[in-house]
Amino acid sequence: MLDKSKTYLVVGLGLLGGKYAQVLSQKGYRVTGITHSPATLDYALTHGYITAGKTEDFADLVQQADCVLFGLYPTVLLDWVRQYGHLLRPGTLATDVSGVKRGVVEPIQDLLPAGVEFIGSHPMAGRETSGIAHSAEVDFAPANFIITPTPCNTPAAIAWCRDLAETLGFRRITQLTPAEHDHMIGYVSQLCHAIAVSLMCASDNTELACYTGDSFRDLTRIARINDKMWAELFLWNKDNLISEIDMFSHALHEMREKLVQDDREGLEDMFRLSTARREAFDKK
Amino acid sequence: MLDKSKTYLVVGLGLLGGKYAQVLSQKGYRVTGITHSPATLDYALTHGYITAGKTEDFADLVQQADCVLFGLYPTVLLDWVRQYGHLLRPGTLATDVSGVKRGVVEPIQDLLPAGVEFIGSHPMAGRETSGIAHSAEVDFAPANFIITPTPCNTPAAIAWCRDLAETLGFRRITQLTPAEHDHMIGYVSQLCHAIAVSLMCASDNTELACYTGDSFRDLTRIARINDKMWAELFLWNKDNLISEIDMFSHALHEMREKLVQDDREGLEDMFRLSTARREAFDKK
Repeated sequence: MLDKSKTYLVVGLGLLGGKYAQVLSQKGYRVTGITHSPATLDYALTHGYITAGKTEDFADLVQQADCVLFGLYPTVLLDWVRQYGHLLRPGTLATDVSGVKRGVVEPIQDLLPAGVEFIGSHPMAGRETSGIAHSAEVDFAPANFIITPTPCNTPAAIAWCRDLAETLGFRRITQLTPAEHDHMIGYVSQLCHAIAVSLMCASDNTELACYTGDSFRDLTRIARINDKMWAELFLWNKDNLISEIDMFSHALHEMREKLVQDDREGLEDMFRLSTARREAFDKK
Repeated sequence: MLDKSKTYLVVGLGLLGGKYAQVLSQKGYRVTGITHSPATLDYALTHGYITAGKTEDFADLVQQADCVLFGLYPTVLLDWVRQYGHLLRPGTLATDVSGVKRGVVEPIQDLLPAGVEFIGSHPMAGRETSGIAHSAEVDFAPANFIITPTPCNTPAAIAWCRDLAETLGFRRITQLTPAEHDHMIGYVSQLCHAIAVSLMCASDNTELACYTGDSFRDLTRIARINDKMWAELFLWNKDNLISEIDMFSHALHEMREKLVQDDREGLEDMFRLSTARREAFDKK
């Protein structure tokens, strides 16, 4: 487990950063926090998620931290590291929560001072809500936690990150390279969100809402989306996402052609293939 | 409620026909059945879903019926009516369970002898399973029941169909023209299935199954699909479905263009629109 003599600084007390602070504090770790929002700082202090925190002039908090957990969107994270990274003491371990990895992990490793080790990780526990007031609703137990080391990372930092995930309550902890992670996330998460959002944007059929059954509701649940964060995630992974969209569009176009040509056998082939593949997913 | 002195003949004892027979028998109605499958007939008799039934030479059952409930796929239904429709007595009321209406309702009304009234209806309670052995799992209470009258239909037949739906346990009973029904079903059901199936067919990413969270599972649940039935439904409604696919593809292509152009503001606009529309669906 994590070392209780250390100080854990959470930078960015949003949905996930707030949850990290809440869980670690509950388990008896010393947690401090930095946020740009006075209301969020107040919430975190009042609810006991952190023991100390600041919205500005926070050099002391950064220098006192042994471990830093970044709960920032990718662009904000990179800006923060550029501006304040030099404040981190050698020996500090740091990780993040970003849903994209290639554009984040190696640039940050390059920016940080010698002796500060950054190891990327992605807690796949996002929700359609945001903000610390919703942190209590987040459930880490059924979510995947993915550690994305690079050749720069030490076995000690990887082990620390795994301890962090276990302490936070994740039961499924795996390891991928940043590139493998971004390929995977483009398919299992971003493409799904792109589809759901496009379906809702395609036409204003809200008058049909009373007829919608489970299929439509299931398909579009994730169309309720945090606009700022998802624009970040999509743009940082655009090459993967565009190629996934193209692959999907090609399959949908094939189905359309089979409809045009009254190709009953071809449609049934697609249905049988999708059924067989989906069954394989249910087994895992 | 329905008249208990009448005989209800279910033609086609699949998932829905079987369920109709089961519920009506349980409630004390006299139910007979026709199926092409000896095993299904045996199941229906053994489980008390019907009191009498046949797989062939069933002219007597047809002539004794006061009400006929067709549980057949559209193409099979049309064939059956062409071949045996003349056996129905004047005064008989009939309905079906088809998921498409334009190609079915008016052709059947034209084919049936004078005095036999067919009124279309669609119990939106399908599942990924099929066959009478799964009928017991079907739940009508939360499903929509849609009556699709044409100018040929009498108020008495519409009222009868509504009574049938209430007796079967549907709580949401509405009325649409066959054309309105097919437009609606193309959007809320068929397009969703087309998307889910295409996503599963797009690439063999089963090695990513261990990383899939709720988004992917929700989106693809309906990709497990009864191939014969859905080929029927798609082809009978292909004009609507193709136009819905085109509308959706256009929206997805717009999103792709915004990615290509790094149009962050445009992406956020789409996310805000989809969020607002999806919220409206949750309220209904």
